[in-house]
Amino acid sequence: MKRWFRTGATLLVGAGIGASAIRLLSVSGRVEEEENHGSHPGLLSRVPVVPVPRVQASELTVSPGGSGAVMKYGFPSLANIKTRESYVTSYDPRTRTASWVIERINPASLSGPSDRKYCNFKEDDSVHIFHRSTNADFRGSGFDRGHLAAAANHKWSQKAMEDTFYLSNVAPQNPHLNQNTWNNLEQLCRSLTKRYLNVYVCTGPLYLPRQEADGKLYVRYQVLGRNHVAVPTHFFKVLILEQVDGKGVELRSYVLPNEPIDEQVPLERFLVPIETIERASGLHFVPNIMKRTSSLQAITAR
Amino acid sequence: MKRWFRTGATLLVGAGIGASAIRLLSVSGRVEEEENHGSHPGLLSRVPVVPVPRVQASELTVSPGGSGAVMKYGFPSLANIKTRESYVTSYDPRTRTASWVIERINPASLSGPSDRKYCNFKEDDSVHIFHRSTNADFRGSGFDRGHLAAAANHKWSQKAMEDTFYLSNVAPQNPHLNQNTWNNLEQLCRSLTKRYLNVYVCTGPLYLPRQEADGKLYVRYQVLGRNHVAVPTHFFKVLILEQVDGKGVELRSYVLPNEPIDEQVPLERFLVPIETIERASGLHFVPNIMKRTSSLQAITAR
Repeated sequence: MKRWFRTGATLLVGAGIGASAIRLLSVSGRVEEEENHGSHPGLLSRVPVVPVPRVQASELTVSPGGSGAVMKYGFPSLANIKTRESYVTSYDPRTRTASWVIERINPASLSGPSDRKYCNFKEDDSVHIFHRSTNADFRGSGFDRGHLAAAANHKWSQKAMEDTFYLSNVAPQNPHLNQNTWNNLEQLCRSLTKRYLNVYVCTGPLYLPRQEADGKLYVRYQVLGRNHVAVPTHFFKVLILEQVDGKGVELRSYVLPNEPIDEQVPLERFLVPIETIERASGLHFVPNIMKRTSSLQAITAR
Repeated sequence: MKRWFRTGATLLVGAGIGASAIRLLSVSGRVEEEENHGSHPGLLSRVPVVPVPRVQASELTVSPGGSGAVMKYGFPSLANIKTRESYVTSYDPRTRTASWVIERINPASLSGPSDRKYCNFKEDDSVHIFHRSTNADFRGSGFDRGHLAAAANHKWSQKAMEDTFYLSNVAPQNPHLNQNTWNNLEQLCRSLTKRYLNVYVCTGPLYLPRQEADGKLYVRYQVLGRNHVAVPTHFFKVLILEQVDGKGVELRSYVLPNEPIDEQVPLERFLVPIETIERASGLHFVPNIMKRTSSLQAITAR
């Protein structure tokens, strides 16, 4: 069996280990630092650099899956952000895939007249042609065009569903994974809308290192087609679940390898501490969420 | 000999191929697109997303290597930008290294009382502890802490030199490369200050794919220490050279593999078309430069 490594302190905390643990995250232990400013404020004042702003999210009254509401718990990063009808995303021009995609789903966003048969995967022409994936890159590759924001989450609007077919919302995914366990995880997200007020889903690729024969750790991933579209080694899904009474937020974070997974393996086996994803992806989730709630329950296994 | 691949159309244009070519870049062929905005302006107006601003650079009267002047020709990307005394940089929290570092050097920045013996490599505590490299990550790794902005470029101020010792300005580098051919390239940059008004140097890591035995392309790189600091497969250096008469700009772009290089190989052999670096890195150089000059001569080999 392959051994995948997570970063630093979380090396010791494996995914899929059966240990039960529901823990309250301690915020005091986290040093929230501002990565977007240099350490010399004096310099900034005389330099025409416009630091990337820290987004102050606020709840808006928009359409059910609208991208305004999506950002209630902030964004994991602030690079190359695009808003779409059904999601907000941060694009990584080097790997030709998104760094993350956030959706908000609830019963209203899941129902409607939209039909997938009118949707086709399409290039995202808001991305420069040097850094864009195309349908040709996937052709004959053996990989599916795996949705990050799932099409079936956005039946409320044909446009919202169509927006999930931008190739910037797609990453190369093992077909067996895409059509089985990953699909089950997407269905789980939708079924959770029955028990929670809103379900925020953040999905993205990971490129995790593995120990090779020389004892050293290497990141290794295939790239597809003329545009060298990166094939992630893993995918993450972070679920931010708002309790119906509005009193608190639950967090479930999953990491699945980009390979066939026996459907008999319960999805709970892929729960990981959020820190695992934060370290490996270069993103932040918890500091943003903690601005919105004082009660965050992280479900790492059950 | 290993075969490294560059992306897409530039696959055919190898580095180190002896073909002589000095060509004027055609700007009309480039589609400059705005990656920071969604394709639906209507949505943006009702969403509190603050798009990353397009930086309007302007020349400032600052200290010789000051970071204000550095940005005259724009930035290759706008993610996690930090300004330092001697350079401006964009940090990649996933790889724990910079995406790029830009300096401006000229005779004034190269002379001064600064002494490297008072400088020590130090963690960049403006980067979150999850995404920061430490000296311990490099210890015993067999890799040098390779400066991106070179220390010797900033003798004009002890603080400017010290700022080059932040580990966010460092990437794991093969020691032989660091101490020989890479050092020669840095010296070339300094010597060019005698012939040009200003020399802008942008340096960064690359992670290039290679064909493996199965005929497919893979990106593979080692990661170091507890924090999994990425070891780049290659490094780029883009030189933006301002002609003394102020009439035009020359561009020289180099890609060197992160491995020992025979010093007998002339540096000209590592010149590549700028498009090679733009495609592989996910960055842009030419669109920004063309805002500042109408005469750009790209020297791809001589």
